[in-house]
Formats: sequence, C-alpha cells, structure tokens
Amino acid sequence: MGYDRSAVRAVIEAARVSGRNALSPDECRAICAACAIPLPGTATVASAAEAGRAADALGFPVVMKIVSPDILHKTEAGGVILNVRSAAEAEQAYEKIVAGARAYKPGAKVAGVEIQQMLSGGQEVIVGATADPSFGKVVAFGLGGVLVEVLKDITFRLAPASRDDALSMIGGIAAAEILDGVRGSAPVDKGALAAIIETVSVLAADFPEIAEIDLNPVLARPHGAVALDVRVLLDFAPPVERYRPSREEILRAMNRIMRPAAIAVIGASAEDGKIGNSVMKNLINGGFEGKIYPIHPKLAEVMGRKAYRSVKEVAGEIDVAVFAIPAPLVAGALKECGEKKIPGAVLIPSGFAETGNVELQNEIVKIGREYNVRLMGPNIYGFYYLPRKLCATFCTPYDVLGKAALSSQSGGVGMAIVGFSRSTRMGVSAIVGLGNKSDLDEDDLLTFFEQDDDTQVIAMHVEDLKDGRSFAEVAKRVSRKKPVIVLKAGRTALGARAARSHTAALAGNDRIYEDVLRQSGVVRARALNDMLEFARCLPIMAAPKGENVLIITGAGGSGVLLSDACVDNGLKLMEMPPDLDAALRKFIPPFGAAGNPVDITGGEPPTTYRNTLRLGLEERRIHALILGYWHTIITPPLVFAKLVIEVVEELRAKGIDKPIVASLVGDVEVEDACRMLFEHGIPAYPYTTEKPVMVLGAKYQWARAAGLVGI
Amino acid sequence: MGYDRSAVRAVIEAARVSGRNALSPDECRAICAACAIPLPGTATVASAAEAGRAADALGFPVVMKIVSPDILHKTEAGGVILNVRSAAEAEQAYEKIVAGARAYKPGAKVAGVEIQQMLSGGQEVIVGATADPSFGKVVAFGLGGVLVEVLKDITFRLAPASRDDALSMIGGIAAAEILDGVRGSAPVDKGALAAIIETVSVLAADFPEIAEIDLNPVLARPHGAVALDVRVLLDFAPPVERYRPSREEILRAMNRIMRPAAIAVIGASAEDGKIGNSVMKNLINGGFEGKIYPIHPKLAEVMGRKAYRSVKEVAGEIDVAVFAIPAPLVAGALKECGEKKIPGAVLIPSGFAETGNVELQNEIVKIGREYNVRLMGPNIYGFYYLPRKLCATFCTPYDVLGKAALSSQSGGVGMAIVGFSRSTRMGVSAIVGLGNKSDLDEDDLLTFFEQDDDTQVIAMHVEDLKDGRSFAEVAKRVSRKKPVIVLKAGRTALGARAARSHTAALAGNDRIYEDVLRQSGVVRARALNDMLEFARCLPIMAAPKGENVLIITGAGGSGVLLSDACVDNGLKLMEMPPDLDAALRKFIPPFGAAGNPVDITGGEPPTTYRNTLRLGLEERRIHALILGYWHTIITPPLVFAKLVIEVVEELRAKGIDKPIVASLVGDVEVEDACRMLFEHGIPAYPYTTEKPVMVLGAKYQWARAAGLVGI
Repeated sequence: MGYDRSAVRAVIEAARVSGRNALSPDECRAICAACAIPLPGTATVASAAEAGRAADALGFPVVMKIVSPDILHKTEAGGVILNVRSAAEAEQAYEKIVAGARAYKPGAKVAGVEIQQMLSGGQEVIVGATADPSFGKVVAFGLGGVLVEVLKDITFRLAPASRDDALSMIGGIAAAEILDGVRGSAPVDKGALAAIIETVSVLAADFPEIAEIDLNPVLARPHGAVALDVRVLLDFAPPVERYRPSREEILRAMNRIMRPAAIAVIGASAEDGKIGNSVMKNLINGGFEGKIYPIHPKLAEVMGRKAYRSVKEVAGEIDVAVFAIPAPLVAGALKECGEKKIPGAVLIPSGFAETGNVELQNEIVKIGREYNVRLMGPNIYGFYYLPRKLCATFCTPYDVLGKAALSSQSGGVGMAIVGFSRSTRMGVSAIVGLGNKSDLDEDDLLTFFEQDDDTQVIAMHVEDLKDGRSFAEVAKRVSRKKPVIVLKAGRTALGARAARSHTAALAGNDRIYEDVLRQSGVVRARALNDMLEFARCLPIMAAPKGENVLIITGAGGSGVLLSDACVDNGLKLMEMPPDLDAALRKFIPPFGAAGNPVDITGGEPPTTYRNTLRLGLEERRIHALILGYWHTIITPPLVFAKLVIEVVEELRAKGIDKPIVASLVGDVEVEDACRMLFEHGIPAYPYTTEKPVMVLGAKYQWARAAGLVGI
Repeated sequence: MGYDRSAVRAVIEAARVSGRNALSPDECRAICAACAIPLPGTATVASAAEAGRAADALGFPVVMKIVSPDILHKTEAGGVILNVRSAAEAEQAYEKIVAGARAYKPGAKVAGVEIQQMLSGGQEVIVGATADPSFGKVVAFGLGGVLVEVLKDITFRLAPASRDDALSMIGGIAAAEILDGVRGSAPVDKGALAAIIETVSVLAADFPEIAEIDLNPVLARPHGAVALDVRVLLDFAPPVERYRPSREEILRAMNRIMRPAAIAVIGASAEDGKIGNSVMKNLINGGFEGKIYPIHPKLAEVMGRKAYRSVKEVAGEIDVAVFAIPAPLVAGALKECGEKKIPGAVLIPSGFAETGNVELQNEIVKIGREYNVRLMGPNIYGFYYLPRKLCATFCTPYDVLGKAALSSQSGGVGMAIVGFSRSTRMGVSAIVGLGNKSDLDEDDLLTFFEQDDDTQVIAMHVEDLKDGRSFAEVAKRVSRKKPVIVLKAGRTALGARAARSHTAALAGNDRIYEDVLRQSGVVRARALNDMLEFARCLPIMAAPKGENVLIITGAGGSGVLLSDACVDNGLKLMEMPPDLDAALRKFIPPFGAAGNPVDITGGEPPTTYRNTLRLGLEERRIHALILGYWHTIITPPLVFAKLVIEVVEELRAKGIDKPIVASLVGDVEVEDACRMLFEHGIPAYPYTTEKPVMVLGAKYQWARAAGLVGI
C-alpha cells in the first residue's frame, strides 16, 4: 500500500511539538488525504455563484456551513443549511448563510462557506486500530450501530493486515450477509472497504505513536466507501522493548536444553520424597543416556554417581542444569551456571512471582540475561523429552514415544497431560512446564519444535501470552508445517479474573485472541480434554486433501448425530454424485440409505463394512471418512476393528491414506475395539458421536490454514 | 386476556363464506380492534376544519390520504400528503388533496380524507404466530430488520403464551439489550409489547383457522407499542386428530407393561443366536421373578419352560408379549394378543416403516387400536426395567440398579446406553427402545416414569416428536418433579436431513425445539455423551438451593479453566463476602488466593482440602461446590477422595447436602479416585475441567426450571 508517509509524519510531529495527543479534524483529514482514505467531498467557496458551481460538482444533496473564526455556534447563527438539492438552492443558501452570519454577529470575519456532500444510503461500518497490551497494534472491523454495540459483532487482525486479511474480516463477522445486500439493497463495495481496512492497519503499524484510529462510521456503498468521521489518538511514550533473541540464538540454546549430552541436578538428593531425589530417579530410571552430574554441597555421591559441590567443579561441558533447591538459593547457583556457560536452567522451585516475590524473580532473570542462561520456569514440574528418554522432572516418568509435544503454564494441567497420556497411551515427544515464564515461553518452544523431527504436533496450555504478537508470528510460520493447538485459559471474563489472580498477568481480550490465533493458523481447543484429544489424534491422522467427508454408518441413529456433529465442527458432508451413490448402493440392503450418511443398516455382515469402506478410501473424490459402528452379533466389535485396520493398511500400502475417525456404539467390547483402532492410527471413541468428529474437525481446521485442502 | 371473541369469529366466518384465506387490511384492523392491539390512530374527515381538529387530536405528524372508490393510484392523483405538522397544514392539505383528486379525475366520488398518525422513533420488532407441524401453534418474537433476517434472532413459545412467557421472549433474544435503550435512547415499554405477544398467541390458539399472524413491524416505544402492519392468513382445513389416551389409560397399560407379572415371548427359541432365544435367556438369567410363557408353534418346551402354541392357550393373565418373530407374522400374533386382552406388545422385529413397508405398520397399528393393545416399536431392541430385574430384550443384560430411566429412538443409541452404563456402572431404572414409535412414544414413557418411584431422572434420545405439543405439555409437568433430559438428534440442517432419511419423519425447526423444550423445563443435551453423563450424574446429586457456586482448587491453572467452564455453563461464581473470604484465608497459605476460585495452592496437606470443603458445605450462603484437585505426594488422589467422602457424609448425616462436582488432574491414580467419589454421589472426572462443570450446569438448569433455586 503506497501512501504519503512523510505527510503523515509531519502531522504527527506537529501534534508532538504542540503537546497534543489527539489530532484535530483537519489533521485527521490530512492523514486521510495522505493515505487516500475517501472522505465526503468538500469545497470552500467565497461567492454564491461559486457555491452553485461547487455544489453541482460535488453532487446533491450537500450541506453548507459558514466558515468564520468568529462564529463558534454555527447553527445558532443560521450558519448551517442541510439538504441543499440544486445549484440554485446552493446560491440562495450561500446568501442566506452569509446574511445570517452578519446579522448574528456584525463585523464577524467570514472566510467563506464550506460545502460538503451529504451522503446517505449504504451500510455504516466501523474500521479502527488500537494497541493491545499483548498483541500490539490490531485493526478492527465491524458493522455500525447496535450490531457492534450490543452484539459485539467485531473482528480483529494483527496490524499490518494484508488485503486478504481485510477481506477475511469483511466476510468473518456474524452479520457479514448484510454486506452482500439484504432486502433488495445492492452489495457494498468490499474492495473499497478492504482498502480502507488495510490502510488503517498499515498506518497504525507504521507509526508507533498512533495509539488509536477510529473511522466511525464508514459508509460502505455499492461503489466506494467513505469515512464520515475520523478520530486519531496519539501516544508518544516510547514503546517497551522486549528481550527477543534471534531464531538462531533460541535454537542454539533450546537444542542443548532439550537434547542435552550432560545434565546437572542442583540439589540432587538420595533422600526419598525430596524433589532432588525424584529428579535423579527419573533421569536414571527413565533411561537417559547422557551424563548426569549431581550437585550437592556436602555429599560425595548421590545414587551411585559422583557428586560435585558446584557445577563449576565439573570438568566436562554441561548443557542444562535442573534446579531442585529452595528459591533463596537459586540466584547463587544460577550465577555459577552462568560462569560455567551452561545455556539452560530448569527452575523447578516455587516461591517467586507466583507468591508475590517479584523481586527475587527479577533478580534471577537479570542473572540469566547477564550470563546468557535461558530459564525454564520457575515454579514448574520440569520437562520430558522422550526421544532422548529424558524425564527432567520430579513427576512420574513417562515413556510412550510419539509425535505430540505438549506444554502447560500450570502444574495441574501438566499433571493432567501425564495422566491422560498414560491412560490413553498417547504418543508423546515432549511435555514442558512453563510456569512463571520468567524467560523461556511458548515462542521458544515453538521455534524448537518447528525443527524437531520427533515432533509433529504442538499443543499448548496458555494462560497469558507475554508477547502475543511474537507468538502469533512464530505460530503462523510453524503452523504451516505442524499443527499448533492452543488451549487459552481465561477465555471468559470470570476465567480471566481467575487467571489474573493466578499469574498476575493480564489476560488479553478474548475476541482478539480468537481472531489472531485463527489468523495464525492455530487450532484453538475450547477445553482441556479437547486439547489432549487433539494432541493424541492429530499426529496419527493423514491430512485431508479436500473437503468431501463421507459418513458410513451401521446405525441410522448414529448417522443423524454424526451429521449434527459435522455441522458443529465445520465439516462438509459430500454431496454424493449419482455414480458414487449407485456404486455404494450395490453394497447395502435395498432399505438402507445411500446418500450421505450411507446407512448400511444394522444387521450387516463384515463384508458390507469392508466394501463400503474400501470404496470410500479408493474413491478419489472422497477426502475423509467417518465410520459409525453399531454392535451386532453378525459384526462384533473386534471383527469390525480388524476389518477396518486390514482395509486401511492395504490401501496405505498402495499409497492411499485419508483421515478416518470412528464412533462405536455398543456394549463394553467396543472399548477394546477403539483401543485397537487407535493403535493403528484411527481415532475411535465409544459412546460418543461428537468426539471423533471434533477431532476430524480439528485436523481439517489445521489443514485448511496450512493450505493443504483443495477446494 | 379478555377480547371480543365473537367479533373475531365474525371476521373469520366472513372470510370462510367468501372463500378467502387471507384477511383484508380492514379485516385485520377489525381483529386488532377486537383484541385491543394498538394500531396507528386514524380518522376519516369530510372537511378542512374537521381535518385540522382530527389531526390535532391524533397528534403530529400525520399522513393524509384521499378516500375514493374511484381513485386507485392515490399518489399519482396527488392524494397522499406525508408529514403534516400542524392543524393549519392539515386544513391546507385537505383542500389540496380534494382539489388534486378532482383535477385528476373529474367526477370522482370523494368519500373523505383519511388522517393517520405518522409514527417514528422507537424500535421495530416482529410479533407473529404460525402453525408448526409438530408443536402446533407457536408465537414468535424478534427484532425487526436485519437482526431477524440475517442473524435469525427470533424466539418461539407454544401458543397460548402467558404474560411471563411473553416477557421471557422479550428478554430472551440475543439483542435484548437494545430494548433496554442503547445510545441514550429510552427503554421500550415491555409491558405493552408483552401484552401484544400474549394476545397474538391467544388468538392463534383460540382459532384453529388462523394459520399465520404477522405483526411486522410493531413499533415498540417508551410508552406503548403499535402494530404498523398486520397480516392474517387462514386455513380452513380441519385439524388432524391424533390418538391420545388419557393419563389413566396410559398408566393402566404402562404399569402392566413395565412391571408385568407375566410375560409371553412370541417366537421363543432354544436355538442359540436367535432373537427369541436371547430374549428368553435375558428374562431367565436376568432374574425376572414373574411368569414367563414361551410361545412357539411346535415346541412343547423352551429352556425348561412349558411352551404354548398361542397366547390364547395360556390359562393365566398375561401383561406383556415380547415379539421375536418375522414382521409378516406379527399381525396375526398381535390379534391373538388382543383377543387374550394383553395390554402391551413389545415389537422387536424390523421390516416395517423403516424399510418402507408403511402398510404393514399401519395394519398392526390398526389392530393395536382395535384391541386396545399398546405397541412398543416395532424395530427395537426391547426394554429393560431393573427394579423388576426385567431384561425384555435381545441385547446383553444389565443389572446395576439406579434411578436413571433412558430411552432411545435408535437401536445404536440404545446399545451406547448399555455399553456406557456398564462401563461407568451407571445406576439405571429402565432402558427403553422406541424405534418406529408406531404407538407408544416419549409422552407415554414420561407419564409412566413420572409416577415411578424407582426413577429420578428421564433421559431421552429423540429424532422426531410426532406430537411435540403433547410432549411439551407432559414434559412441563414431569420436569417440575424430575429432570427430563432430551438429546434431540437432527439439530442441524444436515442432521435433520439424515434424520428424515432414517425415520421418514419430519425433523422440526430446531429453533422451535430449543425454545419450547426450555419452556417445558427440559434439559437439552447437545451430544450423546452429554446425555449419558447427565443421566449418570443428576440422580446422585443434591439439588442446589441457590445460585452461589464456589470453586476450591489445589491448582490455580485448573481454577482458571473451571471458571471458564462456569461461564460456558451458565453458573454464577459467588461474589465472596469479606467475612467468608477471611474465614477461608485462615486455611490457606498466605500466597494462596482467596476470592473465588479459592486457590489453596498445590503443596497443601489433606487438612487444607478438608477445612475449606467443610466450610464450603457448612456455610449457608454457598449453594454448590466445584473441587479442583491436583495430584501431589502430600495429598495423593485416594487420600483426597476419602477425605472428601468423609466430610460430605459427615455433613449429609447432619442434613446438609449440596451438589458437589470434582475435576481431578494428575497421574492415572486419579481415575480410581474419581470412581470412588462417583460411588459416593460426587460426580468426579479425570483430565477434564469441563465435564464436571457441565454436569453441575445441567443440574442447575433443571433446578431453576423446577423452581427450586432461590434468587
């Protein structure tokens, strides 16, 4: 977007020099002029004849106003005439206004009469930009009037927003249909609207001083869009700079922290029940194959390993130090880590910002910066990195290797991750506690997992994002390659209040989170259990190549519920072409229902499931399958599971792999069948029609954002 | 609501006689006049002086129109003048209109000039009534313009609606806030609006011929509300009468069917794998203590019981006959049941309407009516009634007695009920398959379970309601006593399409279902698994006496997620009074967070959980508790479960019982702790913060509808 940047800079400078934080109407106009944001046409004239000509050129109706430094209350002075409809009326109006002004205040200096287009019709919308504490500059779009005020029908994007972002905003509000024209009115000019949104976002992004821009209303018309009122607020406070190492710096540290060759355990202990003991046990029993250096002020040996009084006494290089000592001792030990040039410290101890001891936390952050030691925590359970059999935590070990990396800000959620993983045998690459996030945060983890071939999906429990913008930027890049799932706690006002009391961090406006996370390709989990299920399922499913979903079900009742769930999860049931319908019909009883769902009916033998499933997989026009199984004696649960696995593996061997999920209803044997299907890469759930579809919906959401799904 | 019924009847009769289905504007006005629905004030005058006086009396501005049978195009004839603002202007306008008419068409008969109030300001709303295929007459309310057109912000109630219903409609739309006045505008007169809604609903209900009434727009103003446009459509086709036995008749049959002393199994078999064999086995092995009569054309004995060739050969009385014979044989055997005066037939066989064989189904329905045999099914798995150890089904038996009765329209969902029940050890009183619902339906089941002391909650999977109005009426009565949970399949357009292909039944408009079910006090489950969890939990929880919910959590992170879930489920976190806050603070560490959630922090011993829980139970101002447990070595999962059970039982013994739910995060031991808590009446879930809160939300939803929750 080209615009006259120096003109805008000049206006802002003038305001800065004169100490103003709000721009005058004329200054706002000047900015709009510099950026080609259309305003109502105006002209200032000095004679009746000129008024007639100028009004004619602007187009009728117009409004005419006295321009006089001596007249403050224009209406009172008869200095405003609305709804002037012809050149002749404009000439008369000019005379009337000037005469009125003279009568009202004899001797008043009359600089002329301003003529402005009086626009009506079209749809009033709002375009604005503001500075969010977490995301920085964001651009907003909504419909004017009660829709935005009462229904909060507004959408946000990071500024600067692209033209495509702007168009997605216009199409993304709940009442978007209004802009396509309702009740016979013409559709608005979305291109013109998008241009304004883009311009406002670029302006806000380019000028840190612009705290707020408000174009309210903008009149969106069939041809063009015009800003009827413009406000700009400035903030000249210098922006707060945040410490952001480069991608290379992050990776250099993270690769050593997550895949260490040597670990020090500061506060290692042989005493049962001590955190330093649990960490030692987990490292050793977990099977970590690198060096382990117990650090203890007195002991010569811990759990059969030579102990050292300080990391500085260790001869070899150390990649990461796990802290299991009380908070007051951390700073001292951290300095030694710095001197030893250890790139990472895992700070398990609590007793920092979360208990109000912000100073102590600031102290260790300062040490970390000084010596370039990255800090994980404090106030965490530690972390797991399964490809290296590494359980650097005081919690119970976990060893089912898989492709899901998970992180949590809260220890409670971390424990839920471990318990759920163990219970479902979820394949995991890493589990990381972020706790107080004094230094390392989600950005660093994403940057690491992005290039970690052992990780295929990243799921994060987040209470606050200290730098939402940076997260969004990294997530946008990473989510093109791997699904990024975020459970944002404090979604609701109540939740956010609880989040504040917990982390002392400001929870962002959820609407902004919602829009920006989507813009970044993030799959948002609404609930803890959803996040866990997405982490479990997404890495084992193939990515869909198109939107055509087919339901094959043995129970019509399940078919209805599965269809409901498809709508709830944004999935499109394929419209069945006649040839496919006919092909399926060959396999099902005459009273079964072809179409979509395909209802093969309840009494069918395994072959019917087998034939319809094979067709669904082989047929190129079908992109994903939802299976609804109904427990019968003719096709018992394990028979069903086995046949599905056989067909799926047969086709995988031929290079055909599509996302498949299954809902199994029946007696408890269906639970065994679900486990078996899961182990073969088919998410399958008993007693629920919603969960499998939700999981498929999440996979689709990611695949669409990553540009993998053709239309 | 009093109104001139005979005046309305006269208008409708006139239309009927003249063969019209739409009322004229004058007839619509006459109806409004008869019901005191305010219309804009009008007067017809015959002189200029009269015009001035009349306009003055109506209030300005007014619109004036020629009244002439000879002038069709009034505007063309200069016969309409808008925006007349004074008596003098009205006098002039009169002259101008009459002169204009004479000039336009000399000799035209001028009957006078009509003067009508020109109303503006206020908020445009829509009030209407229509006939829904399932629910009959319903009344609708929404905001005018794009809100109802684009955002479908409209709400329905059964007609007639009470004044309270009407007020709940006004408050129940998404944009309700607009009616309270936004941007400084005055609130509308909700009383006047409610009166119109009530009146329209009564009119629609009182006159079967009124197919549709549309008051669109109604101008809702600070004082009063005026219908600006009224349309009434009629339908003189006689309404279809549905077979509806009386409550006494239903109970007489249902009590014998569900609690039989003697059962016949038509098609009883000794051959493994046959349905008639499974039914026999389930009856015998299930422990049914009544008489069992196998019916078989040839065998003398089945499974050690004397067999009969026909029910008519049995000497004693039979309460219910379970059919396990092919569809074509059903009619004959059913006749014999009728002759034997058996009040109920459980029709397991398929091959009726669901396969397109509607005739065969009609035939058996006819026989049922003729002999007064109530039919369950056909095309069902049968039913379970556990208080009598009765498994009249070919599915696997189930024996965990409890207070939840469940029904399903689909066999697949029925199997999910059995599997889920067994897996979770849910306490069940009954499971009933309704299948094609040729006769017995949800109304009959509700009527039975209402008076069944062994049932405390009724959960129903519904694809269509054949008589939604009757269901709503029964549900409204029953839900005052016991929670009625409905999983309505075919919620979405896609789902409804699948429902149609499955049951050949028209799926109702979901918005009407939503509103009417709520109006009837029904708790609506959004998903199969939700229905099952509600059925499992609601009977074991105490009913809340007020809205104050307190969260006590050991993990701050869970507290945030639990707060989010409270908002999602319509629960109100108690604002903590200072004295309670202080009392709780005594039990928790100084860095813990009082308020709500109470964050006791992670490292606390059992006493902290115990003390805060006891306080929460003893304190009268707290009405429900949500516990967030975090797995630690200091308070392990089973220790937590035991202490909770101890405190709860101690207080139950003192007569204090409140609804409590728990979310447990931690390693897999939390699953055992959850099972233990469940067994003691405390719904508890691992790895999820949402499910326990959702369950509590459902209990609240019911308790509010039943009038149990004080404000």
